[in-house]
This record gives sequence, structure tokens and C-alpha cells, in this order.
Amino acid sequence: MKIAVLTSGGDAPGMNAAVRAVVRKGIFNNCEVFGVREGFRGILTEDFIPMQLGSVADVIQRGGTILRTARCEEFKTPAGMDKAIANLRRREIDAVIVIGGDGSIRGAQALNDRGILAVAVPGTIDNDIAATEVTIGFDTAVNTACNAIDKIRDTAASHQRLFIIELMGRNSGAIALAAGLAAGAESIIVPELPYDLDEVSRRLEGSRRRGKLHSIILVAEGVASAYEIAAELKKRTNQDNRVIVLGHLQRGGSPTAFDRILASRMASEAVDLVLAGKGGRLVVVQNGRYTHVDISSALAQKAVFDSEAFELAKILSI
Amino acid sequence: MKIAVLTSGGDAPGMNAAVRAVVRKGIFNNCEVFGVREGFRGILTEDFIPMQLGSVADVIQRGGTILRTARCEEFKTPAGMDKAIANLRRREIDAVIVIGGDGSIRGAQALNDRGILAVAVPGTIDNDIAATEVTIGFDTAVNTACNAIDKIRDTAASHQRLFIIELMGRNSGAIALAAGLAAGAESIIVPELPYDLDEVSRRLEGSRRRGKLHSIILVAEGVASAYEIAAELKKRTNQDNRVIVLGHLQRGGSPTAFDRILASRMASEAVDLVLAGKGGRLVVVQNGRYTHVDISSALAQKAVFDSEAFELAKILSI
Amino acid sequence: MKIAVLTSGGDAPGMNAAVRAVVRKGIFNNCEVFGVREGFRGILTEDFIPMQLGSVADVIQRGGTILRTARCEEFKTPAGMDKAIANLRRREIDAVIVIGGDGSIRGAQALNDRGILAVAVPGTIDNDIAATEVTIGFDTAVNTACNAIDKIRDTAASHQRLFIIELMGRNSGAIALAAGLAAGAESIIVPELPYDLDEVSRRLEGSRRRGKLHSIILVAEGVASAYEIAAELKKRTNQDNRVIVLGHLQRGGSPTAFDRILASRMASEAVDLVLAGKGGRLVVVQNGRYTHVDISSALAQKAVFDSEAFELAKILSI
Amino acid sequence: MKIAVLTSGGDAPGMNAAVRAVVRKGIFNNCEVFGVREGFRGILTEDFIPMQLGSVADVIQRGGTILRTARCEEFKTPAGMDKAIANLRRREIDAVIVIGGDGSIRGAQALNDRGILAVAVPGTIDNDIAATEVTIGFDTAVNTACNAIDKIRDTAASHQRLFIIELMGRNSGAIALAAGLAAGAESIIVPELPYDLDEVSRRLEGSRRRGKLHSIILVAEGVASAYEIAAELKKRTNQDNRVIVLGHLQRGGSPTAFDRILASRMASEAVDLVLAGKGGRLVVVQNGRYTHVDISSALAQKAVFDSEAFELAKILSI
Repeated sequence: MKIAVLTSGGDAPGMNAAVRAVVRKGIFNNCEVFGVREGFRGILTEDFIPMQLGSVADVIQRGGTILRTARCEEFKTPAGMDKAIANLRRREIDAVIVIGGDGSIRGAQALNDRGILAVAVPGTIDNDIAATEVTIGFDTAVNTACNAIDKIRDTAASHQRLFIIELMGRNSGAIALAAGLAAGAESIIVPELPYDLDEVSRRLEGSRRRGKLHSIILVAEGVASAYEIAAELKKRTNQDNRVIVLGHLQRGGSPTAFDRILASRMASEAVDLVLAGKGGRLVVVQNGRYTHVDISSALAQKAVFDSEAFELAKILSI
Repeated sequence: MKIAVLTSGGDAPGMNAAVRAVVRKGIFNNCEVFGVREGFRGILTEDFIPMQLGSVADVIQRGGTILRTARCEEFKTPAGMDKAIANLRRREIDAVIVIGGDGSIRGAQALNDRGILAVAVPGTIDNDIAATEVTIGFDTAVNTACNAIDKIRDTAASHQRLFIIELMGRNSGAIALAAGLAAGAESIIVPELPYDLDEVSRRLEGSRRRGKLHSIILVAEGVASAYEIAAELKKRTNQDNRVIVLGHLQRGGSPTAFDRILASRMASEAVDLVLAGKGGRLVVVQNGRYTHVDISSALAQKAVFDSEAFELAKILSI
Repeated sequence: MKIAVLTSGGDAPGMNAAVRAVVRKGIFNNCEVFGVREGFRGILTEDFIPMQLGSVADVIQRGGTILRTARCEEFKTPAGMDKAIANLRRREIDAVIVIGGDGSIRGAQALNDRGILAVAVPGTIDNDIAATEVTIGFDTAVNTACNAIDKIRDTAASHQRLFIIELMGRNSGAIALAAGLAAGAESIIVPELPYDLDEVSRRLEGSRRRGKLHSIILVAEGVASAYEIAAELKKRTNQDNRVIVLGHLQRGGSPTAFDRILASRMASEAVDLVLAGKGGRLVVVQNGRYTHVDISSALAQKAVFDSEAFELAKILSI
Repeated sequence: MKIAVLTSGGDAPGMNAAVRAVVRKGIFNNCEVFGVREGFRGILTEDFIPMQLGSVADVIQRGGTILRTARCEEFKTPAGMDKAIANLRRREIDAVIVIGGDGSIRGAQALNDRGILAVAVPGTIDNDIAATEVTIGFDTAVNTACNAIDKIRDTAASHQRLFIIELMGRNSGAIALAAGLAAGAESIIVPELPYDLDEVSRRLEGSRRRGKLHSIILVAEGVASAYEIAAELKKRTNQDNRVIVLGHLQRGGSPTAFDRILASRMASEAVDLVLAGKGGRLVVVQNGRYTHVDISSALAQKAVFDSEAFELAKILSI
């Protein structure tokens, strides 16, 4: 069997561990494995690399993706899709394993609809795929954000300052919530819930009265720019503040053990699916177990925000 | 309501996050919270500290336990237990929350049996409590071990050497398995499965023939000393090797975001249990959800080793 | 002898190690040591804390400053200075050790001019005190910046993108130069040297022609906003780019071993100076040795930029 | 001009940065550069690799050495040396740059004595080359050791235990001294100074009386096994203790910014020397400046132990 593997969309720590697992488990099962460079674009440009056991040596601990990634508009057009299918058929690729976020998962679905066995592995730091409890890269991004907040707190406490920190997550507040709970942020503002800057101001005032002279407020990028929030808070509290936008820092770095294991196991499931001829599936974690779901139903699901964790963060950061 | 909280047994990263959550959630619910120092011993020596919101400021990110921990033989005697109960009653402590490993959980059960409402939170790096999918400190210990292996691999690869690394875990191979899968160790030896040094030697030979001139073998402390394994392998392969015993390094360090969240949430559940008057319970994660089980049934369960992950580690580290 | 110690200006990792060394070396020499909170402001508000050996336990590894820091305009006025001197005299403080950047060093000079023995220790991440080869906090800030760039490179390489990263340093390019040399940044823009965005663009083009499809450009904050530079480069190269402003992240975090040692030794020198009755001195490193210079001459010196390192960075990052 | 570069002896973090600098600065100066694999052995086995700009892409941040290293007895024999010279001549190699510790530096001298222009760059974590204030890898090793001690202190403090930690350094106590000063170790035992376990015991007793119930004692490997020291202390104090041997962990890991810069600049000096036809030189840092000395005189020098830092460590860790 010939399997192609690609990474697509925003890069996420652990993607290399997933590629490694596809390659080695594929070869273990007597498959030929090809790496496609730069995501779906590489199918169109025929950037296929034969992968050996050694091709993925010494990559499990590396951030980013050795196959590189890109966004590709052409692939979404009917002509692009025709070309993709033709290129895959000519090379006799039997199956494609796609590692990426929701757009990439849709791409896998499209290939599968056109008769190329395709399965998807959720790789995105945003943890915004409703069908799975966790995505590859999320744990690393949360730790990176959490450690950055720890560092900023050193300065915040030394200067008794208010910091507003903007975290990634596209339309999801998952990174902000997890990093905020883990780092003890005094307020967390996420797109899933209405926010009230008057209440945030009151919390700040309450803290100051109790003698806690510094505070850290997290803003998920899906809400607003941290600069806007900072300006609004300045008006209300008349307290100076500083803004930090963590940005792409959150994407990089050596993956945590959690992400390496998650990636290895999800990719292993993907190879099993392909070997079993089951296309159109997304590998997921549900109820703490590795399993898989139909891509189309998966993408129809809406993410449920963990309000319990959110409320707990409020209580604990008082 | 008056709640006492203590940490007992080996320290684990995240214990401070758990103590913080007990204190703040307790106070939020109008309880008085007391920290007991040095585990059960502090009940006997009456080392109780009134905890305020500020008592647990700036501790969520710190390793070890601010309440300290100790092993206490006296507490296990009938006289010791009588004294403990008397001390708790005199201070009108209504409930005790115990954070620790299996011995500590048993201690909570003993208190509960004697009429002091007691619940337990599983805090141990070993992840050897069968009733819960994960314990506080495990994720940090695995990351510490994984990062250490990453560093050792630099040297192993540069010198083309064989390293035998001994990891913690008491009778459990959980740390060795997770760190080995995450760091791509070439062989993992755990107490849960029979091991065959001849097979390990054959794997080493196979690697060398394919040109992979360095290897890393992990040994869980529950199996044997890494020095013994190293001597046996030396006989078989005639290849020099180096031994590293990671030891207590694995217990320390700032907890990962995962452990801080796990600890905060488990401790929050414990406070809920106490408020609801439910004693003799152990907070656990089952099917990826926070819940609780009866301590006595929990301790009767036998841990199931994740053989699937073990087999995958073998395939991927070829 | 009664010694007061304070930290002033922007916080820098290692300040706690310096405070610890003043306290313990002072007590070792039979002095009474007082910590002044919030820099010079604490002299005015009489926020003096008697320090014991244990007051500085477990702080050597912590970022920020346990004495806190602040900017204080009142202290710079004649009336403020009078009050400061009066407060110090009434408490019979014999000497003040000031840890901070150039403004703080000037403050020490002012106290010394008014008859209070005062010495200064250079603590600032900016490394912009010409009289000393290195300041406390610089090494940690450079490592933090360097590790951040390493992470961003993961994403830059995966997406083949151009990143513009703004680093701290006030009017100095020292952090940008060191972090850029250490992380292999493709271009470094500093305030000490004229820069030519056309040349930067040509370097980018050259890289692309040779197949290096991602690049990282560092901009010291003393030059311009990274956003402005990014906009200018976009015009010239027509290549998309991403901007990251590292900001206060660079101030925090556990100090490196280098900064802990530097801080301990500089603070120890400061205590020796005070014991010897030598005021108005700044502790420095010159020719790799710990020594001290007159504050007034020190502040008159102009920093020399390390052009050799700058040229080397260009050659090596090709 | 044709330049060969090799890394030899124990690997040290920063060696890759040095190799990168030799390659890129060499090519910048129109040289052909060859990497020799596995140290001097590679000259004998003719394991020469032509290096391009891209051969050293993405290596500056990596631990170990991409050229690998080995000890080679044959090279030290007259026959081996003849073969080495013959191999270098046949390939028309004009100069060899050797990165390594004292044995490796001697090897460079031997080549130079036989008419092959050879210069040496001091790369060893041990910092035991008297002629230079610092060697490549030392700063990273000290930080690794320091961070490990920080982690162990979490557990030591939680359990009020005594830990004995063995650090690397061959016959030098430099790593132990620096890590001990930086991490606040309660006692440091080095080969350069006589030690008195009775005094260490008295210090321990003194600490306990003052209520400091945990302690960390560092032992440089050049003194004795930490296990022996632990047994002796157990006899004297009757206090339980735990032993940790950090071992090869200290060699690996991503180099610090300091080591990357040191390595880049030393390697750059080495290329300058070679271009200027100056053989038999060792690149060093003296008085905080990059310079070079005659290898033979360099190796005759005896290292001076920094007793002042040692005494300070004692005072500060009380």
C-alpha cells in the first residue's frame, strides 16, 4: 500500500511526532510512505518525498513540521481538486493522511469524497475541533503561554502593574482558559462568553483593596485586540497597564511529552484506519480514549466551552 | 465548616496548586481552612496553620509542597490514630483533605472510618493508582524525564553510545513507558511485563546493522537497578554503555500546566465532596472526566498496564 | 553598621540574588541590613524591613525583585532628597546599596553627595552602562529572547515566512545583537548603527534565491517599532511578514546561573566597599574582573557598540 | 584554501555553533571547508564531508555535535600520525581546526608540529583549560546543573532532607563551584581544596539548629564518589541522605546564548588564524577579550581555582 502524509494549516508542536509515527508504523506494515511538502499544495506541485525509517530520525522532539505547511487556495477549486486526484492516481497513492486543523480536515474529506482513501488527524494548537477532547499542539501551546505568564508575573509583581496579555486560539478561548487556570490569571476573557469590563474593573479594585497590587488579564484573540481592552480598562480604572501579544511564540518549541504521545498514538490510529480501508474518518480522543468519527459529522458539531473550569479559575484567582 | 488539608508521602509537582485550590475554594464557601504541616505527622504534633487567601499566593507555579511532607509510622498505630482523632476533634476540624499516594489515601480512609470526614486527592508522580487515569505530578515527571532523555540523546548520538537510564515509578512502569514513547527510547523495560535481555540485545544489533549507532534503554526502578541491566547487556553485546539514574530530579520542578489544572480541579472536587458531607471518597479522572470513587474499592483495584502504548513504542523507535 | 538595600528602575532577573548577597554578607560582617521596598520611594515612605538570614531564603532562583521596584519622581526633587536624607539619618542608616540601571545609579550618587555612604550595583537587562562589560539581568534576557526566537523559527521555517521581532534595550542594541548572534537571526537592526532597509531587502532576496525561504529580522526597540519596519519591508519586498513584540517577557523568569553569580559577586563587592567606607562607587566588570569605578566618571562614559560581533552575525547568518 | 574542522573528546553544547562558524566564515573567505567525522579518527578513516552554507543550517541551537566525536588511540601512535598527515596531504587540506578539550588541543599541536597548519578551539564543559577564562559548553553545563539542583531543592525542602549531588568536571571543581554558587548549595566539595567532612557535618548541625532542615551538598566527580561522601556523612551526622549523580545529563541540551556566542566568536578567531597562516595556536578568552596563545605554553599552565568565589559561596549559603 502507498500512503501519503501531509501537514496543513497552522503548524503545531507534535506534527513531527505524528509524521514520524505514520512513516514508521506504515513501513512496519509494509507500506510505502511518501511525505508531501507544504500541505495540499505539494499534491498539486507533486512535491512527494519517499520516506524511510531514517527520514524521521531525531524529529520527535522538534517543533514545527519537517514537511512544512501552507495554505492553498487552488486546492479548494474544482480544477485544483481534479489535478490533485490525478496526481495521486498517477503515482498510485492509495491513501492520504492529513494532519491539521478544521480546514485541513475538510480537505481530507474532499479527497475521500473523490475516491482517495483519506483520514485526518487533528493538529492545531487551538483545540477547537469539537469532536475531540484535545488536539495535537494544544498542550505545548498552553505550557508556552503559561510559562510566559509566569515570567510576566515576576515583573508585574515587582512593579505592581496590570498586564493585559493576548493569547492565540482563533475563535476559541481554550488556550486562554487553560493557561489562565494554570497560571492563576486574575481575569480571563474568551469569545465563548460575554464579558463585562465593568466587572473586570470591579475585580481589579477589589484586589487592590485587599493589597494585591498587580494583576494579569488574559484576552483570547477571538474577543478583541488586547490593546483595545487595555484602553477600555484604562478609562475605567485609571490604572496604567501594559500589553503583551504572545503571538506566534505559542506555535513553536519542542512539543511536550503529552503532545508527542498524543501525536504518536493518533497517527498510529490513522494508519490502522487506512490499512482497514476506512476513509473519511477523523481520529479523536473521546472520554479519554483514542477512537475515530466520521469527518462530516465531526465538523458539524459545535465545541462546548468548559464553563466549570472558567468559574473555577475565577474563584481560585481571587 | 473547618477543613484541614495536608500533603503526604513523596512530594509531587502540583501539590501546591492543589493546596491553593482547597484553601481558596474553601474560603469562597465560607469555610475556615487549616494547613497541616508534614503530612499526618502534623496532626499528631498539632502543626496546624490557619490559611488565608494570601497564604497560597504565588505558589501555583512552585514544585514541592509548601506544607511539607513526611512519612509517619506513629499515625499507623492505634495509639497514634487515637491521638490524631482527639487532636482533630479538640480543634473542631470537620473534614480533612489528604493529597498523596496510596499510603496517604489509606490514611484518609482510616480517618474517615473513625468519624472524621476525609477525602483523598491522588498526588504522586508514579501514576500507580488504578482507579484514576492520571495522578497529580505524573505529567511533570514525564516531561522532566523526557527532557533529560532528549539531552542525553545529544551525547549518545555524538559519541554513538548506548545509555541505560533508570526512571522512577516504584512498582509501576508508567513513567518509563510515557517518557520512552515521548522521547523515542529504543527499548523500555517495565515491571509489568517480562523482559528478555537477549531480545533487547538483538534489537541493539539490528539497529547497529542499519547504521543507528546509539541507543537509549529505559529501565523502570521497579524492575532492577540500571547498573545490573547494564552489566548484563555488556556481557551479551560486548558494547560499552553508560548508566544514568535520574532519581529525585523527577520529583521537582515547576509543575506543567496540565498538572496545575489537574490539581486545581481535583482539589476543587474534594472541597465539593466535603461540603456535601461525602467522606471516604477518592477524587479521580475516569473516561476523561472528574469524578470520585469509594476509597476502599479504589485501592482494591489493580492497575492495568497500557500494552498498546508499549507495543507502539517498540514499533516507532525502530 | 546599618546598611539599607533597594532595587530601583526596571526589574531585572538576578536582583533577588543581589539582595540575598547584600543581606547575608552584611550579616556575616555583623551589620544590620534593612530592605527598602519600592526603590527610592520606600525611603520616603519609610518602608524599611529588617532583614534576617532567612528573609532571603529561597529567592536566588526567583525572577523579579522581592523588594519590589518603582520609579519615584519625588525623590528627584530637592524636598524629596531632604526627606530621604532625614529619614535615613533618623534610622541611623550608615550606608545604602542601590541595585538598578542608570537612573538608579544617579540616585545613589545623589545620596552619597549628601553624605550618606552609597554604592551602586548595575542591575538592568539592557546592558547599557558603559563602565561595565555586563549588567545583572542581561544574560537572562538574552537567553529568554534567544529561546523565543528559536521557537518562532520553528513556525517561520514550517511556513517559509518572514518574521520581524522587536526586542528590548531602550537606546541600546545589546540584547538584539547578542540574541541575534546566538539565534542566527538573518538581520539585526540596532540604534547604534545606521540601517538600510534596501540592503535588508537585498539580503532577503539573496536568501530566497539560495532557497532559504524563511527569515528572522530583529529590531531593537530603540530603532523604531517593529510594525513600522515591517510595513516598510512589505513595500520593498512584496513579501508577507509577521511581527512579534517580545516586550516584558524579557524581564522575567528565573535568572541564569551567570546572572545569579554576577549578582552575588557584585553585591558582595558592594558590601566590601561600604565596609571600607568607600561611597560614590559603582561595582563593575572590566577586563573580566570585578572592580569598581567612580559613579560620576562611569555615567559620563559612552557605551561602545561591539561592531565586530555585529559583522560576524552578518557573515554567519547568510 | 582548504580547511578541515573536527570535534574531539567529550561533546560539549556549543560545538555545533563552532562548526557552523568555521564553515560559514571559511566559505565567506573563499575557502573550501570539510567536516571530519568522529574527531581524529575521521582523518584516519578518511571520513571527510564537503560542507556548504546549508550544511550547518539549523544547528546553532542543537546540543552534541553533528560531526560526532570519538576518542582515537591510533592517532596518538607514530604510525597513526603518519597516516593522518598523509591523508590530509593527499586531499590537499591546508589547515585543520580542532574543537575539543586538552587531549584534542594536544592533537592539534601534533598536527601542526608535522607541518599541517592547525589551530585549536577549547570545547569542553569542564572549563579546565588554564589559558582561557572560559571554554565552550561550560555555561550550558552550569545552567543544566543549576536547574537540576533547583528541582532537587523542591523535594529536599518538602521532605527536609539532605541531598548529596555529584557533578562532572574531571579533575576540576569549576562546574561544582559555579553551580553551587548559583543554586545556593549549602556545601561544595572540590578537588582543588582539601575538604573536611567534620566541618561539613558541623555546618549541617548549625543549619538544623537554626531551623533549616534541608541541605544540598555538591561533590565534584574529581573528589570522590558522592556515594562514598554520603556514607561518611551518614556516619557523622546520623542523618539520612539521598544521592544523585547528574552524569551525562550535564553534557547535553541546547546551548545557552552565552555558549553559542562564545563558540561563534572563538571559531571565527580560529578561521582568522588559519587565514593568517598562524598555526599551533589556541583561541582563548583572557581578561574578557578574545585572543590566542601558543598551544604548548597554554597546556603547560596550571589552572587557578577561584577561591574567592568559593569563600563567597560559603558565606551566602549559610
